[in-house]
Amino acid sequence: MTHIFLYGPPGTGKSTIGKKLSASLKLPFIDLDRVIETNAGMSIPQIMEQQGETTFRDMEATALSALTMERESVIALGGGALLRDENRALAESHGKVLLLMADLPLLLERLRNETGKRPLLAGDLNSKLKSLLDKRKSHYDSFPLKLQVDARSAEHNSYRARVVLGRHHLSAMREYDVMVDQVSNLPSLQPSIIVTDENVAKYHLEKIQTIFNAKSVVVPAGEEYKNLETVSRLWKGFLENGLDRKSTVVALGGGVIGDMTGFAAATYMRGIDWVVVPTSLLSMVDASLGGKTGFDLPEGKNLVGSFHPPKLVIADPGLLLTLPERELRSGMAEVVKHGVISDPGLFELASQGMSWVKDHLEEVVKRAMAVKIKVIEEDPYEKGIRAALNLGHTVGHAVELVSKFKLSHGEAISIGMAAEAKYAARVGLTGQSTVDAIVSTLSTLGLPIQIPDEMPREEIIRVMRVDKKKNAKSIRFALPVEIGKVELVNVDDLESVLDDGR
Amino acid sequence: MTHIFLYGPPGTGKSTIGKKLSASLKLPFIDLDRVIETNAGMSIPQIMEQQGETTFRDMEATALSALTMERESVIALGGGALLRDENRALAESHGKVLLLMADLPLLLERLRNETGKRPLLAGDLNSKLKSLLDKRKSHYDSFPLKLQVDARSAEHNSYRARVVLGRHHLSAMREYDVMVDQVSNLPSLQPSIIVTDENVAKYHLEKIQTIFNAKSVVVPAGEEYKNLETVSRLWKGFLENGLDRKSTVVALGGGVIGDMTGFAAATYMRGIDWVVVPTSLLSMVDASLGGKTGFDLPEGKNLVGSFHPPKLVIADPGLLLTLPERELRSGMAEVVKHGVISDPGLFELASQGMSWVKDHLEEVVKRAMAVKIKVIEEDPYEKGIRAALNLGHTVGHAVELVSKFKLSHGEAISIGMAAEAKYAARVGLTGQSTVDAIVSTLSTLGLPIQIPDEMPREEIIRVMRVDKKKNAKSIRFALPVEIGKVELVNVDDLESVLDDGR
Repeated sequence: MTHIFLYGPPGTGKSTIGKKLSASLKLPFIDLDRVIETNAGMSIPQIMEQQGETTFRDMEATALSALTMERESVIALGGGALLRDENRALAESHGKVLLLMADLPLLLERLRNETGKRPLLAGDLNSKLKSLLDKRKSHYDSFPLKLQVDARSAEHNSYRARVVLGRHHLSAMREYDVMVDQVSNLPSLQPSIIVTDENVAKYHLEKIQTIFNAKSVVVPAGEEYKNLETVSRLWKGFLENGLDRKSTVVALGGGVIGDMTGFAAATYMRGIDWVVVPTSLLSMVDASLGGKTGFDLPEGKNLVGSFHPPKLVIADPGLLLTLPERELRSGMAEVVKHGVISDPGLFELASQGMSWVKDHLEEVVKRAMAVKIKVIEEDPYEKGIRAALNLGHTVGHAVELVSKFKLSHGEAISIGMAAEAKYAARVGLTGQSTVDAIVSTLSTLGLPIQIPDEMPREEIIRVMRVDKKKNAKSIRFALPVEIGKVELVNVDDLESVLDDGR
Repeated sequence: MTHIFLYGPPGTGKSTIGKKLSASLKLPFIDLDRVIETNAGMSIPQIMEQQGETTFRDMEATALSALTMERESVIALGGGALLRDENRALAESHGKVLLLMADLPLLLERLRNETGKRPLLAGDLNSKLKSLLDKRKSHYDSFPLKLQVDARSAEHNSYRARVVLGRHHLSAMREYDVMVDQVSNLPSLQPSIIVTDENVAKYHLEKIQTIFNAKSVVVPAGEEYKNLETVSRLWKGFLENGLDRKSTVVALGGGVIGDMTGFAAATYMRGIDWVVVPTSLLSMVDASLGGKTGFDLPEGKNLVGSFHPPKLVIADPGLLLTLPERELRSGMAEVVKHGVISDPGLFELASQGMSWVKDHLEEVVKRAMAVKIKVIEEDPYEKGIRAALNLGHTVGHAVELVSKFKLSHGEAISIGMAAEAKYAARVGLTGQSTVDAIVSTLSTLGLPIQIPDEMPREEIIRVMRVDKKKNAKSIRFALPVEIGKVELVNVDDLESVLDDGR
C-alpha cells in the first residue's frame, strides 16, 4: 500500500486539497476525523468534551491502523494525528506523509469561521493557534515532504502537492499513473516478463526479479541497438515465454529500452500492457513519459514507432545512485531543457552543478518530470505545444546520429540547445543573457556546448531533413525566448543554426 | 462529388430518413423543396398555384444544378424532381440516387395529415395518390438502387439505406468512411504513395495511378510475404519517397496488402493516414474493415500488429471482375461466415452458387460488409461479440498456416467453418440441419470442407495454441447455433474438433 497522508496544522486545507488531489489521482478520499466521528457516533468536540483528548487519540490510532489496511487512498489526517510515534511509524510505513504548511495570517483567515468544530482552538484563536504551532514546530518540521500552501485555489495547491509527492495520473492519451517511489514498494505488480539491457542487468536485474518474480529478456545496451533486430528479439522473447493479450511487460532501463519495449508491447498481438521502471535520469524525467515508443532506422531516429503509454511509470531515484557520472550529466541536459521550457526555478537548481544535483536527485526528478507531464497532458499527440519539448532536439538528434552515438543523447541535446539558443539570440528572439545562462548552466554541469569541429555541416543538415520533412524548405524549431518560455519558429536557414553551434 | 439523393413518391420519408442518414454519415442534409421555397420566397403550394408546375420544375432544375456543385450532402428530392431527363442525368452523374418505395397503406397513413402541403395530392388523397403512382410506375422502377421503406423507425430505415447504398461512417475506433463506389469517382484524394503487390499491379496499378497521380511501392504477392521483411520494405519505400507525418498511403490489394500497409502506416513516424482500395472480395467484406493491421511471424499469423483504421475504405466491385475464380470463391467463405453470424438472407443468396454471385457482386459486397460493420462498431477492440467473427478461423488459421499457404485464407476458413459446425452439432449446440446447410453452401460454392488427410493433427493443434494462449487449456471458439446466430464457447477437446473436420 502506498497511501498518501495529508498532515499539518489546522487550516492548511488538508480536506479541501485532499479531495482535489484524490480526484486528480483517481484515488478514494478519506477524512480520518470523519471516520472517527462515524465510529464513535458523536462529533469530535463531543468526544473531546465527554471523553478527553487521550481517548480521542486512542480512537485516532485505531481508525488509522484500520485504514492503512484498506485500498490505496488519499487520507486527510487530524492536525495532531501523528504526534504519537507509533501512529507516525504506521503512516510512514504505509505510504507517504505530505506536510502542509501555511503562513499564520492565511491559517487565521481560514479558521476564523469554524472554531466551533476545533475544540483545541476554542477561545482566543490567534494566541491559541500560535501556541499550538510553537509547541508542534519541531514535530511538523521533522517531516521530509512539505508543501507551503498558498492563497491560490485548492486545484493549484493540489497540483503543487502532486509535484512534491511525485505522483500523477495521466489521462490525455490513455489512463496511467506516474509515481516517484521505491520500486520495492510495488510487489503487487505481476508482470509476465522483464526487458532490460546488459548494462542495467548487471546493476538492477537481480533485485527487480526478486521483487516481481518474473523471467527476463536481456538485449545489448546502447542506442546503436535501438533497431528492428532488437525489437524482433523482443517479439520472439514474448512468444517463447508464452505471453498473450493479457500479459504485462516491464521495461527496466533507460530511454532506449523503454522506447523499444513500449513499441514491442504496442504491437505484440496488437497491443499489450507494459510498465516502465526507468533507470536513467533522462528516462525518468522525459523518455518514459508521454507514450512515444519506437526504434531507429539507419536513415534516422525514431522513424518507426507508435503512441502507446505504459500502464504505470515507477521512477525510483535510488536506482540512479549506481549510474556512471557521464550518464547522470547526460540526463541533466533534459532537466535543463525542462527548466528553459517552463520552470525557471528548476533551471536555477540545475545551475548549481553536479554535486548539488547528486544530493537532490529526488527533487530534480520530481520537478523536471512535472514539466513534461504538464505539456503532454495539454497536447498528447504533438499537434501544438508538445513540440516545445523539441528544444535542442532538432540539432541534437542529427548531431547524435552523425556522431554514430559516440555522443550520448543528453550530450547531443546540450549541444543542440546551445546552438539553438545562439541562433535565437542572433535572430532577435531572445537576449544574450538567456544564451549566457543556458550555456553556462550546461557547462557547469560538464556538458558539451559545441558541435564537434570534425562533423560535416552538410551531413547534419541531411539528417535533420530526414528526421522532419524531406521536401520541406523550413524546419520547425522550438527556440528559447527567456528562461521559462520557448516559441515554435520555422527556420529556413539551417546552415546558420549550425554555424552558431560551432 | 458523390452526393446521396433520396427520391421516390410522397410519403416515403425522404426528409425524415434523409436527416437520420446524414447524421449517421456525418454529411450535411439538404431538402431540395426547402431550397426552392427559400429561393422563391414563397411556399411550394403558392408557387404551383401562382406560377404553375412548369415554372416549379424549372426552379427545381436550377436549384438541383446549383446543389450538385456544393460539397457532398444527403439531398432529399421532391417526388417528381427527376422526371425531366436532364435532372436525372445531373443527379446520376453527381452521386447516387436511392429510390424509396413503400406500400400504399403506409403512404396513405403518412400523407393523410399533410395534404395542404402537397398540391398534387389535393382532393381525394387515395385516388390521387394511386393515379400518381400508376403514372410514375415505370419512372420509379427504372432506378437501380431501391429501398422498400417499412413501418419501423426512421433510424432503422436509415440503417437499411446505408446497407443498400454501401455507405457507412464508422466511429467506434476512429472516424472513417466506408463506401462502395467506383474508385474513379475519387480523384480528389491526394495520396503520397500507392502500395500494392505484383499480381494486383498487373491488373489495376496503371488505372489507379492515373486516378491518383501517385508513385507506388510494389511488393511480392502472397500470404507467405506477409512478414517483417516486406513491412521493412514499405517503411523504406515511405522514407525514400519523402513521406512525412501528414502523408497518406493508399493500400491497393487484398487482405495481405491491407494488413501490411496499414501496419506500416500505423508505425511510420508513429502513425500516418492510409486509405484502402480492396481488390479482393475477402478484403472488401472483411479484412479492410475494423482497423486490424499486422503481419505474420514464423510462429503464427498476425502476431505483430496494431489497431489503426484507414481514413477511408473504397470498395469498388468492378475491380473484382478480373479476379481468378479461385480467389472469388475464397472470398465467398467470409461472405458465408457473415451470413451464418447474423444474416440468414445473405446466407441464402450465397447458397445460389458462383454464377449467381458473379452477377450480383455489388449486392453481395454491400450485405456482407454491413454484417462486419455492425459487429465492429459494437465491439471495436474485441472485448466481446467481435470474437463472433472468428467463426471458422480458429481451425482455419491453423490449417492455413500448416498448409504453408497452399490453402488460401478462404479455403482454410471454409474447412474451419465445416469442422467447427460439425463439432457444434456433436456437442448439442446446433442441429444437423445447420451443419448440412453450411456444408452444402460451401460445397456449392466449390470450397473445400475437409481437413486434408495428410495434415498432422498435432501440428494443427500446436499452431492453434500459439495463435491463442500458449498455456491455456481451452481455446475460445465462435460456434454456430443456427444460421444467423453464433455463440462463444471455450473448448478443451481440440482433438475432437479436428477429428470432426476430417
